[in-house]
Amino acid sequence: MANITKKVSWSSRADDSNATGEGTPLLNGSEQLGYSRQVSGGSISQIGRVSTVNMDEEITSEEDSLKGRPKEITHNEKLLSLKYESLDYDNSENQLFLEEERRMSYLGFRCLEISRWVVCGLIGFLTGLIACFIDIMVEQLTGLKYYVVKENIEKFTAGGGLSISLILWAVLNSAFVMVGAIIVAFFEPIAGGSGIPQIKCYLNGVKIPRVVRLKTLLVKVAGVICSVAGGLVVGKEGPMIHSGAVVAAGVSQGRSTSLKRDFKIFEYFRRDTEKRDFVSAGAAAGVSAAFGAPVGGVLFSLEEAASYWNQMLTWRIFFASMISTFTLNFFLSVYNKNPGELSNPGLINFGSFDRNVRSLCSFCGLLGALFNALNYWLTIFRIRYIHRPCLQVMEAMLVAAVTATVSFIMIYFSNACQPLDVVQGEDYPLQLYCDDGEYNSMATTFFNRPEKSVQNLFHNPPGSYHPLTLGVFTITYFFLACWTYGLAVSAGVFIPSLLIGAAWGRLIGIMLLGVTTTKVIWADPGKYALIGAAAQLGGIVRMTLSLTVILIEATGNVTYGLPLMLVLMTAKIVGDYFEEGLYDIHIKLQSVPFVHSEAPPTSHWLTAREVMSSPVTSFNRVERVGTIVDLLSNTSTNHNGFPVVVSNANGEEPAKLCGLILRSQLIVLLKHKVFVELARSKLTRRKLQLKDFRDAYPRFPPIQSIHVSQDERECMMDLTEFMNPTPYTVPQETSLPRVYKLFRALGLRHLVVVDDSNRVVGLVTRKDLARYHLGKHGLEELQLAQT
Amino acid sequence: MANITKKVSWSSRADDSNATGEGTPLLNGSEQLGYSRQVSGGSISQIGRVSTVNMDEEITSEEDSLKGRPKEITHNEKLLSLKYESLDYDNSENQLFLEEERRMSYLGFRCLEISRWVVCGLIGFLTGLIACFIDIMVEQLTGLKYYVVKENIEKFTAGGGLSISLILWAVLNSAFVMVGAIIVAFFEPIAGGSGIPQIKCYLNGVKIPRVVRLKTLLVKVAGVICSVAGGLVVGKEGPMIHSGAVVAAGVSQGRSTSLKRDFKIFEYFRRDTEKRDFVSAGAAAGVSAAFGAPVGGVLFSLEEAASYWNQMLTWRIFFASMISTFTLNFFLSVYNKNPGELSNPGLINFGSFDRNVRSLCSFCGLLGALFNALNYWLTIFRIRYIHRPCLQVMEAMLVAAVTATVSFIMIYFSNACQPLDVVQGEDYPLQLYCDDGEYNSMATTFFNRPEKSVQNLFHNPPGSYHPLTLGVFTITYFFLACWTYGLAVSAGVFIPSLLIGAAWGRLIGIMLLGVTTTKVIWADPGKYALIGAAAQLGGIVRMTLSLTVILIEATGNVTYGLPLMLVLMTAKIVGDYFEEGLYDIHIKLQSVPFVHSEAPPTSHWLTAREVMSSPVTSFNRVERVGTIVDLLSNTSTNHNGFPVVVSNANGEEPAKLCGLILRSQLIVLLKHKVFVELARSKLTRRKLQLKDFRDAYPRFPPIQSIHVSQDERECMMDLTEFMNPTPYTVPQETSLPRVYKLFRALGLRHLVVVDDSNRVVGLVTRKDLARYHLGKHGLEELQLAQT
Repeated sequence: MANITKKVSWSSRADDSNATGEGTPLLNGSEQLGYSRQVSGGSISQIGRVSTVNMDEEITSEEDSLKGRPKEITHNEKLLSLKYESLDYDNSENQLFLEEERRMSYLGFRCLEISRWVVCGLIGFLTGLIACFIDIMVEQLTGLKYYVVKENIEKFTAGGGLSISLILWAVLNSAFVMVGAIIVAFFEPIAGGSGIPQIKCYLNGVKIPRVVRLKTLLVKVAGVICSVAGGLVVGKEGPMIHSGAVVAAGVSQGRSTSLKRDFKIFEYFRRDTEKRDFVSAGAAAGVSAAFGAPVGGVLFSLEEAASYWNQMLTWRIFFASMISTFTLNFFLSVYNKNPGELSNPGLINFGSFDRNVRSLCSFCGLLGALFNALNYWLTIFRIRYIHRPCLQVMEAMLVAAVTATVSFIMIYFSNACQPLDVVQGEDYPLQLYCDDGEYNSMATTFFNRPEKSVQNLFHNPPGSYHPLTLGVFTITYFFLACWTYGLAVSAGVFIPSLLIGAAWGRLIGIMLLGVTTTKVIWADPGKYALIGAAAQLGGIVRMTLSLTVILIEATGNVTYGLPLMLVLMTAKIVGDYFEEGLYDIHIKLQSVPFVHSEAPPTSHWLTAREVMSSPVTSFNRVERVGTIVDLLSNTSTNHNGFPVVVSNANGEEPAKLCGLILRSQLIVLLKHKVFVELARSKLTRRKLQLKDFRDAYPRFPPIQSIHVSQDERECMMDLTEFMNPTPYTVPQETSLPRVYKLFRALGLRHLVVVDDSNRVVGLVTRKDLARYHLGKHGLEELQLAQT
Repeated sequence: MANITKKVSWSSRADDSNATGEGTPLLNGSEQLGYSRQVSGGSISQIGRVSTVNMDEEITSEEDSLKGRPKEITHNEKLLSLKYESLDYDNSENQLFLEEERRMSYLGFRCLEISRWVVCGLIGFLTGLIACFIDIMVEQLTGLKYYVVKENIEKFTAGGGLSISLILWAVLNSAFVMVGAIIVAFFEPIAGGSGIPQIKCYLNGVKIPRVVRLKTLLVKVAGVICSVAGGLVVGKEGPMIHSGAVVAAGVSQGRSTSLKRDFKIFEYFRRDTEKRDFVSAGAAAGVSAAFGAPVGGVLFSLEEAASYWNQMLTWRIFFASMISTFTLNFFLSVYNKNPGELSNPGLINFGSFDRNVRSLCSFCGLLGALFNALNYWLTIFRIRYIHRPCLQVMEAMLVAAVTATVSFIMIYFSNACQPLDVVQGEDYPLQLYCDDGEYNSMATTFFNRPEKSVQNLFHNPPGSYHPLTLGVFTITYFFLACWTYGLAVSAGVFIPSLLIGAAWGRLIGIMLLGVTTTKVIWADPGKYALIGAAAQLGGIVRMTLSLTVILIEATGNVTYGLPLMLVLMTAKIVGDYFEEGLYDIHIKLQSVPFVHSEAPPTSHWLTAREVMSSPVTSFNRVERVGTIVDLLSNTSTNHNGFPVVVSNANGEEPAKLCGLILRSQLIVLLKHKVFVELARSKLTRRKLQLKDFRDAYPRFPPIQSIHVSQDERECMMDLTEFMNPTPYTVPQETSLPRVYKLFRALGLRHLVVVDDSNRVVGLVTRKDLARYHLGKHGLEELQLAQT
């Protein structure tokens, strides 16, 4: 393999995973790399692998990328990475599959349907349990930490030795974060961040290596507990969504490849199509558990992910969401020694508001866009310079220490004393330098778990916070949150965004309260906090429908529906004007070939002929084993789907299309040596069944691990039974939007382009479509590279 | 035309509309009728139009169907009607279209996008206005009626001449209903019923004649006011959804064909694809106005209708919903002399609940299924015997009179006196035979507007209703509602269902209250009313996700989310076991070729070869005008889509596919006489543009209205520029589920089946797919007939 430069990936170690156990990733090229590309004018420009490895070099003119391990990684956002493969969301309806389907009775389909519901129930149950576990662990650890620090502060407040408290606090936080960062950076880099962009890509059809593994789940859960307990400006909601997705991918397969256990159940679900549906349900269950929002969960899955609306699927997703909320509520109620009290809506409960809000924020979207822009530059910086695991751990620890220090300094210098009786149910009121009977409100904001702080900002009565406190808090928290997102720790961005928004929302509320005279209507700054929180979060993640429902479900009151909707819609429109959503930015920075829901509007100029890759490597229906092995082993082409053709009797070329076969299928065929000429051994060998393909799924062995002797190379292989005989095709003249629509609506991986006699002329894959995007100067074409 | 029997349609007059102004419906056959059908074994069974006209006859063995106007219409539910055409939800990307798209700059697309938002805003605004108008009119009329009747009753209560009051009441009601029934039965039968099944079909791609016309809207609005004011057991929510859809279809076209006004705007939107998207938004806006549920509206559109989830579309639909709610609130607040008070959530506001519910109903779904079964038999009876407009009007009046009488008798014989002080804000408390300071609770239930009654059942304190009152009320209302749905009046089923459910829910609540000892928890029977209402409505219409959100938004409290979800899910599962949803039943009874979201599970046996219609009538790329005219005029075939082929030089047949052209396009071509040989006149004639097609849309003239002279018949017509050069195709071996998926995901109308050399062998249309459904004995095939 020609991986000379260090690859840029979700985290800098993800590529290493290819070599260790991912199966195909050893050959993780693209479907079409190495095909020569026929551009519109007819000129042929060759984009081969070897020539593109250092394509970045031309742009950054750095010379060190060839000298061993580079200090800086060159990165160009106008590239599309070739290292991401696609998932097969279109069933390969080959003879084996059809035979199985036809054998199955109506009763069989009913059983299958019921087991789908069972799996969804299980997904909801386990996701709820995990959410419950994370919540309890975080509560225990933070409680312990606060107790230690508070004791220490109170001990030293009089004596003036507060620097010792600061150091204690910073060290405690850094220790937690170090653990969290080490497991993420060294053991499972893909578990870093919120996981939502990765799940979005997965559901879009991009194979992100290791994203739904058991190990990822374990690291994610442990990591998020550490980073939240370590006082970082992060939330635990994004990781919970990722956890739900991993649970779904695991449970639905009825086995664990990591643990080498196969329960021999749910074998039917061992393919990408079914797995994707369950992963949608898992993500929804995660949202549902995190926010107590089952409907919001379903909408999240649909808005962020799914492309094809299917009623039955929607109902199952909904079911998983409900079960998840229910499980979480039940176990938390048991934990809180109040079993059966199920009114606890979710991990975030904003409490109920009781009156109407009529104001809109003016900042809608602006602050969100600023956040995204800053994070964008920070991420590019990280990709270039902070790509070694140890550097990543150190950065995380640095952030933890800085967070602690900044908080401490702000608490120390602020004189935001508030009378103690105003506060109800404050867990950690800290007196510090305040008079007796008072407490430091800045300390309260920093010391609480973020969820609790959001709730306080929403609900504490007017006068609980000093405006200056809120102002300083907003600015500090804004930059801290921006710095934190993208660290090599498991962390979500929901809660920090809500907190920042709630703080400035409440600040505006207080200021309006000072300006206006009609005090009765504008009385409660908590409502401004809610609106601000929605605006900030909406400006960052750019969800509308699902976020509205999530916030409604989390606040427990529909009265705020209309203002929330208006705010979120405004935030989206304003934000989109400046910058993309945070998740989209991160997806783009990883050069993921993401297929959006519609083709760029001005792309009618392009047709399949210009977009496709050609010429295409095809196989004959009965092909020589040696040819197949050679083609699969060719790392410079590395195709994943091959049209199968039949030649005419007179050998006219190119021959007519008669099917499509995948690399993974060929590998299974080679492994089981399904060769025509081996007549003797064929008698003893059972017919290859769908089960053999399912057993190998999803970690198909690389071609190098399959030994084919010289004799066997001369054998023939009959692909008829295994190929998909009815691949979708389009004529060459089809416009790009039309190709796009077909591709996206059906979740295709390979789309064969044929001429008017049904002869193969090209192949359209995900990367061919994702390349085109709307830039500042109209339609732009991204370059493909093996970054 | 061979329309000998009276056709069964949405209402018995719908077919007449074909002859008057619908354009194509004069030729409203099917896409494939008259093609001979090649069934699996290879045997050919001819289903021609003439031979199938009286196909019903064989089954019912009635003899009178040929003798003029039959007294009874034979009807068989195992038929699929050929009279419904499809809509073109797949753009015909011909050269004209592509040229226009390519001419358009990025700025042009931005403008288009903005105008889409503007249209959605307008749709929301107008829908809100209409909802407001209906609401105010109903309130005024019912107020007037109640006032008159109440005066009369109070006048006669002492004297005992209550029969006069009864007659007055019955006559008043019948008069209202008569007006409503006459305009529906005689002027616009399609405006009858709730309109939801029709909109569902429209969005599914079935062309229901006249369903989105201005006249339909007017009749619908007037009709629903009359029927609600006439005291029928109906709601005004379904009609409001239909109204929203009509508004959307009208506004988005920028002209009114009925009023002959063309504003020369939004011309780009004059095609089925764009129109459908706006109609989705209109339906959502209707739900939003009816229930104050913007999110519920979006989900309704998606759950009931759309097949392809598109983010941009979703956001626009959401926008329309919000505007609609906002408009309604604003104008109602002005009407209520409280301008600016926007907390009025919608036409139905169930008020806020304040505590948790933990009980599930045991009847979930059962009563709903019973309702549907009864209505099913009633509808069949109506189709057979009550198909003349005057009979329909008489039936409606009868129902109105019976409703009044039954209510009166129940009020008369009940002694459900309740103290007056319990009730807050009762609009029409009726003393009747009760003591002073008391009122008759049965009368209250019957006398209020249904929305108000539902609210009372939810919120009146324990003890407001006598259990016997509720029991009798439930039974009476159940049968009345069942009888009413399907009458020739504009009427919805939402509110009656909620009312029935609320009544029995409250009854159960009261009974449990009597049984149980822990009075504190079970204290409020209103919560049982809510659960009962959800169960009844869910059992009838079988929506889950959207109904949950609608009910949450209407109750204004998320706390009930989980119990509501559980109840709705149970109601759906239990109900589906016995009977389909009410809307699906009505769609099926009209023999509409509805394409569900998935193929029947056991249909892998079938391939495109068995499903398709063949042989197909094709045109050459340059075709003789006479041939085209003859084929279009042939009423026995009546195709709507024609593959265009090119023959080889040696004239080998069948030739290769090179495009697809629609009847409507050919008609425009013939009208503008775009003939190749007319060289002289061609010079003076401008090139045909997309505008000419848009101007003719959607009422293309019938072929009979176009005169083609004998000379012109010999001319040639070049179809190259106008045909869709890249129709979607499938090979013959493609399995039915795969064909289904492609067809449904892309909203196709014609899918060309080709052989391995790209030669046309068949055509798959909507009816070919809708024919297969899962019956009691496995896969069944419906017969096609010109019912």
